[in-house]
Amino acid sequence: MTQKLVVVGSVALDSVEAPAGRRDDVLGGSASFFSVAASYFTAPRLVAVVGEDFPDAHVAMLRDRGVDLGGLEKVTGKTFRWAGRYSSDLGARTTLDTQLNVFAGFKPKLPASYRDADLLFLGNIEPALQLEVLSQVERPKLVAMDTMNFWIDGRLDDLKRVLARVDLLVINDEEARQLAGKHNLPQAARAILALGPKTVIVKRGDSGALLFHDGRVFAAPAYPLDEVVDPTGAGDTFAGGFMGWLAKAGDLSPATIRRAMIYGSVMASFSVEAFSLDRLRALREEEIHARYRAFCDLTHFEDVRVLGG
Amino acid sequence: MTQKLVVVGSVALDSVEAPAGRRDDVLGGSASFFSVAASYFTAPRLVAVVGEDFPDAHVAMLRDRGVDLGGLEKVTGKTFRWAGRYSSDLGARTTLDTQLNVFAGFKPKLPASYRDADLLFLGNIEPALQLEVLSQVERPKLVAMDTMNFWIDGRLDDLKRVLARVDLLVINDEEARQLAGKHNLPQAARAILALGPKTVIVKRGDSGALLFHDGRVFAAPAYPLDEVVDPTGAGDTFAGGFMGWLAKAGDLSPATIRRAMIYGSVMASFSVEAFSLDRLRALREEEIHARYRAFCDLTHFEDVRVLGG
Repeated sequence: MTQKLVVVGSVALDSVEAPAGRRDDVLGGSASFFSVAASYFTAPRLVAVVGEDFPDAHVAMLRDRGVDLGGLEKVTGKTFRWAGRYSSDLGARTTLDTQLNVFAGFKPKLPASYRDADLLFLGNIEPALQLEVLSQVERPKLVAMDTMNFWIDGRLDDLKRVLARVDLLVINDEEARQLAGKHNLPQAARAILALGPKTVIVKRGDSGALLFHDGRVFAAPAYPLDEVVDPTGAGDTFAGGFMGWLAKAGDLSPATIRRAMIYGSVMASFSVEAFSLDRLRALREEEIHARYRAFCDLTHFEDVRVLGG
Repeated sequence: MTQKLVVVGSVALDSVEAPAGRRDDVLGGSASFFSVAASYFTAPRLVAVVGEDFPDAHVAMLRDRGVDLGGLEKVTGKTFRWAGRYSSDLGARTTLDTQLNVFAGFKPKLPASYRDADLLFLGNIEPALQLEVLSQVERPKLVAMDTMNFWIDGRLDDLKRVLARVDLLVINDEEARQLAGKHNLPQAARAILALGPKTVIVKRGDSGALLFHDGRVFAAPAYPLDEVVDPTGAGDTFAGGFMGWLAKAGDLSPATIRRAMIYGSVMASFSVEAFSLDRLRALREEEIHARYRAFCDLTHFEDVRVLGG
């Protein structure tokens, strides 16, 4: 029943300053957060590149989490590094430094054993590379992608070519507005649906996420946490929990997709409780189920059918 | 079974500029939005003051909606006037003019027939006046209140005296943060609960509303509207739908309070679809029930109990 899930994205070493403290050269990157989140539901296959300086301990952690590392290339040079600082209310993030290093020459190449992927996630990389990945898979049942303002600004034509070929776009609210040229989110989502995807998920940070699909909308709340330590990777973690649940569930029904939205939100809520993947990588299954139940309690109210006259 | 609901607040004439157009001297004020929203569930009793210039047509509309106007004073002078302008994305509001007029001398006086109120809503007026109203009611089952940054800045001691005596505070997110001195919303809500109320509702605009009560949190989404015409009064409308439903339901169980959150959100979603009370005052019951069902569809996902292994 479990479907084969492949993710293509970045593996990085991050340096993060936040009100709760700072960490230097810790594990980061979209594919790291994605694959560890997904690993609680399936054995994701990772495609990424790192340099010679990438610590063995991170490789061991990913392997221990059941991530298939057949597509993790190690090449001459240094690993992609990103440094950033969050504002005191975590509402704004400033990038202090970006060193693409080996990521600048990244040409994603899927191992033969990945080409029959059922589910494919194109992390936030250059649209031309996302297209190259699409040419390497056979008949995936669902292709999802992420993108960012940098590609909307600078590679819009390529990005539209990718959008025309994928089933689902996961995007944050400001980038959805930018891509669509519309401030109103339902209008922006409709404009994006007209570019190709059948489904759009708009991530809204601590306001949750909206799913636009088949003329309906589903609103997943964010979990009201008492303390957020490090928001880095929350969106990638959401996507990993979402796609991981789809892989485990083995179908793409509306009910499954809605539950996947909640599992994505569950995993993201854990991820931000600590720096890097410190919390995400050490979860017990019971903690995940308990938080899923907490989401049920957070959102449950009685239907109109039980209303008195 | 229906409980007696009393609301004290402002009745005003608003002039609003928004991307969708402008309206001059239209019906506004917290008690207007509140009582018309509540009127779909119960016959709210209104306490407010207007001037000699207040149009008879508005009085007739309120009476036709079943609002008890025994507490609506008409006095010599002009009605409270407010003028404001919304930004192009409706995200910011600038007050252009405020003329308190007869509202400056408002001394709320409850008619004898209002004193046995079961449910009391203290709209956003000076805290000292809210205290005066409290001294005029007998044994209400639930007292709720609203407030704003102006009173948090300038009348904090009085405001704390009111908070110590009410059951429920409805407040927007920025004002909750300001009152609590904490940015994190669950932390801010806990700090406010420590001031007296057993329940806090934090309104977050198009991110919905959070209910903090009895150690649990409930998240009501906002309805994803294609077009928002005029956000004026959305919070008061929410409160009116919320309290109106409590009055109709006749109990204060957690399940009833959660449904009230949704009815509040339903009414607010209608209110912002047109200027002033143009949409809110002309709803059919079936439209309200249909939108309640739309909220069910917007939020429904399957519980963890049905998960496969």
